[in-house]
Amino acid sequence: MPKHAIHPTAIVEPGALIGAGTRVWAFVHLLAGARVGRDCNLGDGVFVEGGARVGDRVTVKNGVMLWDQVTIEADVFIGPHVVFTNDRTPRAAFKKPPARFEPTRVRRGASIGANATIVCGVTLGPSCFVGAGSVVVDDVPAHALVVGNPARQKGWVCDCGETLDDGLACTCGRAFVRRGARLQRRR
Amino acid sequence: MPKHAIHPTAIVEPGALIGAGTRVWAFVHLLAGARVGRDCNLGDGVFVEGGARVGDRVTVKNGVMLWDQVTIEADVFIGPHVVFTNDRTPRAAFKKPPARFEPTRVRRGASIGANATIVCGVTLGPSCFVGAGSVVVDDVPAHALVVGNPARQKGWVCDCGETLDDGLACTCGRAFVRRGARLQRRR
Amino acid sequence: MPKHAIHPTAIVEPGALIGAGTRVWAFVHLLAGARVGRDCNLGDGVFVEGGARVGDRVTVKNGVMLWDQVTIEADVFIGPHVVFTNDRTPRAAFKKPPARFEPTRVRRGASIGANATIVCGVTLGPSCFVGAGSVVVDDVPAHALVVGNPARQKGWVCDCGETLDDGLACTCGRAFVRRGARLQRRR
Repeated sequence: MPKHAIHPTAIVEPGALIGAGTRVWAFVHLLAGARVGRDCNLGDGVFVEGGARVGDRVTVKNGVMLWDQVTIEADVFIGPHVVFTNDRTPRAAFKKPPARFEPTRVRRGASIGANATIVCGVTLGPSCFVGAGSVVVDDVPAHALVVGNPARQKGWVCDCGETLDDGLACTCGRAFVRRGARLQRRR
Repeated sequence: MPKHAIHPTAIVEPGALIGAGTRVWAFVHLLAGARVGRDCNLGDGVFVEGGARVGDRVTVKNGVMLWDQVTIEADVFIGPHVVFTNDRTPRAAFKKPPARFEPTRVRRGASIGANATIVCGVTLGPSCFVGAGSVVVDDVPAHALVVGNPARQKGWVCDCGETLDDGLACTCGRAFVRRGARLQRRR
Repeated sequence: MPKHAIHPTAIVEPGALIGAGTRVWAFVHLLAGARVGRDCNLGDGVFVEGGARVGDRVTVKNGVMLWDQVTIEADVFIGPHVVFTNDRTPRAAFKKPPARFEPTRVRRGASIGANATIVCGVTLGPSCFVGAGSVVVDDVPAHALVVGNPARQKGWVCDCGETLDDGLACTCGRAFVRRGARLQRRR
């Protein structure tokens, strides 16, 4: 097996870093300064800008663009056509002061459903789940399930992806407890 | 005219099947096991995975991805950047049991508006119409017009695409009758 | 500096016009009859059809498709994966009469946030701002901020992109007055 597998149509600019075991599909474009971890999967047409950071074992489905100031931690799933941003007030002209890019962080084990939009300046908590087509404008708590435009919390999800029952237990055997506004694993 | 016209930048993997008369535009990628019918039009950047099925005379506009378990019947229109899915609980790790992909079927003559999101496990009925930007999470009845996030029914549409009046008649001359929750052509 | 910089993977069909100083990124496709002004920036995967018109100093981020009948004036910002349309009742078959494409116009200085959907037949007014993930189905007034699905007005924005306060003043020093339903610059 190659150190990493890069499709011949993909463009990896000098200065982009890709970890071992990562697969890069067709028409992908990684700019100088992009950093992608080990054992990731970057689907067709993915674009990674300099300054974007991607951890290990991350799935990035087709058509996703990761801009400067976007940080993806390990074990995250990013669905097809999920769209990130890094400027809350984009203008082609007349901007004063010049663009301040705002960071976005997606914490370990989170999932972002297909075609969701993530407005910059937010943190998506560990193991949270953003429903397909949602528009996220606020922070998402750990293990929270959010859906809609704008995205609102509708429940809680397990590490395994299934929705928790009213007792915060999962069919997979895991169980959780509330700690204030947060959810923690019961051990 | 060629049997089918494939742009030189398109990638058609060995084992992908394309019917006669189908046009394949730039930067398209068809994987082994993809099956596309006759006289279709696959716009720039379309991606068709093994296991996806596309009928005859289907229009697939730019940037659409058709995954394993997605079936498109004949005469369907899929607008630009429409996003399908095949897993309701995607995780990059910790999934137990392993991913069960759920099927999606788009029935004959349906239209899906631009940038709509289709959550898997649903059937879009014959000649239905999904409004642009909608997020579909439930089955859509035949001839129904659905819009919004989540998508809700707002009316009925004709075979020709126009909205039906209160008497279920269309300016094109066609007329329909209710049969319970369903709509049928009056003949 | 070159007259314009075109990435070697971009496809510029004979009959497409590009102004001086415009940068064309990877996997872009411009069809015959497309017209793009000076000092624009067309991100990866942008598609411009014949009949589309783009003014000067326009930013078109990755994955945007500009169809026949779409007109973008000068100094406009179009975010990543913004989706335009040119047919309100698309069908792959059975259409009668044949498709009438409806125009969309984006006026000078407007911004369209990431992954927004623009249903055809509308005008987006000068310096307006469409929030990320919004679905626009109506005209947008000059300087209006619209968000949601369907997009509704939530306030007013300055030339510089910042939201105006209740007195219609901006932190950048500009101020505005209402003229009926419209906003004008106070001088």
